[in-house]
Amino acid sequence: MTELISRLQNAVGAAHVLDAVEDQAPYLRDWLGKYHGTALAVVRPGSTAEVAAVMAACAAARVAVVPQGGHTSLSGGATPDASGQAIVLSLSRMNRIRKIDPIGQTVVVDAGAVLAKVQDAARDAGLLFPLSLGSEGSCTVGGNLAANAGGVAVLRYGVMRELTLGLEVVLPDGRIWDGLRALRKDNTGYALRDLFIGSEGTLGIITGAVLKLFAQPTARATAFVAVADAAAALKLLRLSRSHCGDRLTAFEFLTSATLDMILRQIPDTRLPFDALPSAAVLIELSDISDEPTLAARLETTLADAMAEGLVSDAVVAQDGTQAKAFWRVRESVSEALVREGKALKHDIAVPVAEIADFVKVMDAAVDAALPGIRPMVFGHLGDGNLHYNLMRPLAMTEDAFYGHGPRITRLVHDEITRRRGSISAEHGIGQLRMSEMPLCKPPLELELMQQLKRTLDPHGLMNPGKLLPNV
Amino acid sequence: MTELISRLQNAVGAAHVLDAVEDQAPYLRDWLGKYHGTALAVVRPGSTAEVAAVMAACAAARVAVVPQGGHTSLSGGATPDASGQAIVLSLSRMNRIRKIDPIGQTVVVDAGAVLAKVQDAARDAGLLFPLSLGSEGSCTVGGNLAANAGGVAVLRYGVMRELTLGLEVVLPDGRIWDGLRALRKDNTGYALRDLFIGSEGTLGIITGAVLKLFAQPTARATAFVAVADAAAALKLLRLSRSHCGDRLTAFEFLTSATLDMILRQIPDTRLPFDALPSAAVLIELSDISDEPTLAARLETTLADAMAEGLVSDAVVAQDGTQAKAFWRVRESVSEALVREGKALKHDIAVPVAEIADFVKVMDAAVDAALPGIRPMVFGHLGDGNLHYNLMRPLAMTEDAFYGHGPRITRLVHDEITRRRGSISAEHGIGQLRMSEMPLCKPPLELELMQQLKRTLDPHGLMNPGKLLPNV
Repeated sequence: MTELISRLQNAVGAAHVLDAVEDQAPYLRDWLGKYHGTALAVVRPGSTAEVAAVMAACAAARVAVVPQGGHTSLSGGATPDASGQAIVLSLSRMNRIRKIDPIGQTVVVDAGAVLAKVQDAARDAGLLFPLSLGSEGSCTVGGNLAANAGGVAVLRYGVMRELTLGLEVVLPDGRIWDGLRALRKDNTGYALRDLFIGSEGTLGIITGAVLKLFAQPTARATAFVAVADAAAALKLLRLSRSHCGDRLTAFEFLTSATLDMILRQIPDTRLPFDALPSAAVLIELSDISDEPTLAARLETTLADAMAEGLVSDAVVAQDGTQAKAFWRVRESVSEALVREGKALKHDIAVPVAEIADFVKVMDAAVDAALPGIRPMVFGHLGDGNLHYNLMRPLAMTEDAFYGHGPRITRLVHDEITRRRGSISAEHGIGQLRMSEMPLCKPPLELELMQQLKRTLDPHGLMNPGKLLPNV
Repeated sequence: MTELISRLQNAVGAAHVLDAVEDQAPYLRDWLGKYHGTALAVVRPGSTAEVAAVMAACAAARVAVVPQGGHTSLSGGATPDASGQAIVLSLSRMNRIRKIDPIGQTVVVDAGAVLAKVQDAARDAGLLFPLSLGSEGSCTVGGNLAANAGGVAVLRYGVMRELTLGLEVVLPDGRIWDGLRALRKDNTGYALRDLFIGSEGTLGIITGAVLKLFAQPTARATAFVAVADAAAALKLLRLSRSHCGDRLTAFEFLTSATLDMILRQIPDTRLPFDALPSAAVLIELSDISDEPTLAARLETTLADAMAEGLVSDAVVAQDGTQAKAFWRVRESVSEALVREGKALKHDIAVPVAEIADFVKVMDAAVDAALPGIRPMVFGHLGDGNLHYNLMRPLAMTEDAFYGHGPRITRLVHDEITRRRGSISAEHGIGQLRMSEMPLCKPPLELELMQQLKRTLDPHGLMNPGKLLPNV
């Protein structure tokens, strides 16, 4: 091991190989404090060539590698295990915007670039990089790629996979695959790019990417809409799509209990309704247009929805300040959950048309299993993706509630699997869901994934204990 | 072999195993008459289970399989070789629209469904399946997936890969991978779907797919625009995007020589200009809006472009009939080429911003290599994808010209490779470009593809002689 450490020091400079426990600490514990581990060393390469040298040294020593970006994974995907036998490879020093092309509408970035920095670079060039999620001030593009990130603009712009043209990847043996092509079309063989996207660091280290940029919208219109339930929201989605098409940028759903929790927990949040609705939708349109025209379209859409009885109340934001206040309610939900207490979290997706039925069936099933359990449901209804969170019955302690956790989660995920849904729509599998993979995937699919893993990482050195069990 | 034939007959019914030469003929020769081969038998299964039985029988007998849809490949991707040792597996009997979901905006189809039939089914449900290309009346969804088809609406809606949510695939050993999920988001492991899309039938047989549908536009605006050259067209693209955003649905470029050829070869084609321009762009906007509003936006865009000196003349179609006449010019180009004589065809892509420079540099280089050679260039400029076709100098015979073919193609493709472009943007590699793969791909990339091929098709039975050399 001394030999490996000295090889790593030669590769990246001694200052960037952290072996003191106090220096390593932030890399060993995820931001929610849910996962922690230990490491042989934390290595911080400054270039793709340095990543390659680190990987070659680790491959030679048969030492496992845990890639890490902003360390914001919600599934423990970037935290090492407790064995202390792996190194953590942090991409945080590789944070450059390499090149921006305003004509081709692409940007080439280091994998360690923070998402917000990429958004800023696009905006400075008069363009838009649309990926947007809660952790955008800390998460990195490499992590977004490894986890195929989603967020609040997927409805219009797609997930990270759909925003990516090319990748640069260091393979487990230290060789560099230069797939940094900025091509909109290229049918010359297998989609290596797509194999690495969403692989959660288990096949190689993504070191750079070419991303798509879009025209910057010049107008936004935002509305908070009170609806009866998810079924009404689904009908409103369909109507909004047929009235607004691609303008529909966000369609976020929140239940009454979730709204109530936010208003209680987060100061200065309020809803534009007289009373707490039984559910609500935050709708955003964006366009290259003027704001009055776009707001008028949103108003017409909502008037039609009201005439059809889909909507009980609706307020279109009168200005940017009010729009921001609407979004603040939606964006406060994670913080409100933390303050409210522990939740059993489920990041599920089903076919969009089934989402309302899922919520109805599931709410009844979990209440039957644990009377008084409190669903706090919100999320990207337009993508068929909800955060189906459950909190303790008020009469039950958190510890007692957590004792029921595995049984309740099984109930939720079995229903999802029956509906051919996803038990991780955007958060990835990581450590959190790895043991559930055999329960939700057909055996043949797991076998194919394991074959691919063995093909690309024959010694099983990449991010062990994540994503795929028993390889 | 008699045993295999009898197993195949048991699997699909004797009537669907064609062994007479006259019955086989249409399956052995591609539609351009460029590729032909022979086969042990042509097998036409009627269901996924029958495909699985055929594959299991072939795997047991170690007999190769050539999957075939509409047989419209431009690269010989679906035609067997001359060995007579393979069976052709035609999906043509599997042509059902299985299910359409107007709320989730998805459609589930058999792989053998003809593209136009899928477009029609979407339209009947008030929705749009946007993939659109010349052969849409014959090509099948399975072929579109195998070749990751492009076409004239990629600018707005993306290529086939981006239009696909789920797949059903029969593996080389006859097992069925049921990945027919209709999920907009699903981060639970490797992207098996994307590995099969674009693999040209070399990894398995796609038997079904879940495709995305979109809101049907209610207004279109079409213009024919005269520009000086590809550089001006590129500036017009940028301006159109910033003025029109997602409304920009098509941006098709044609050079003067190409336009002249179309007008000469195809009766009743005409341009709306006083004189033949040195190049032209066909622009289409679409939106959920009314036609006058959309036409007004296109007119404003073109007026601004004219003020900036990017456009010398422009005509916005006054009605659907005129728009159709504009599109007829663009759509006649393939037929005009056939009538004009033989062409050296190159389906290239470069980063969008480089496309004008590529045309300029390449035109000079091919003329230096063979004075008088006639570039007939057209295509999807907005995607960085042009059909860079070359025709004989008028003083040279076609045979003599064809003698220069390999040298000229090398010149074109070397320039593409230098620019990190693609030698097959949308037509695939097939037989046509297989031997060029080592010239245009880094060795590591080829090696990774070959490893994946061996992993999924260890006996090399899937579509041999296509896509990947030396496996």
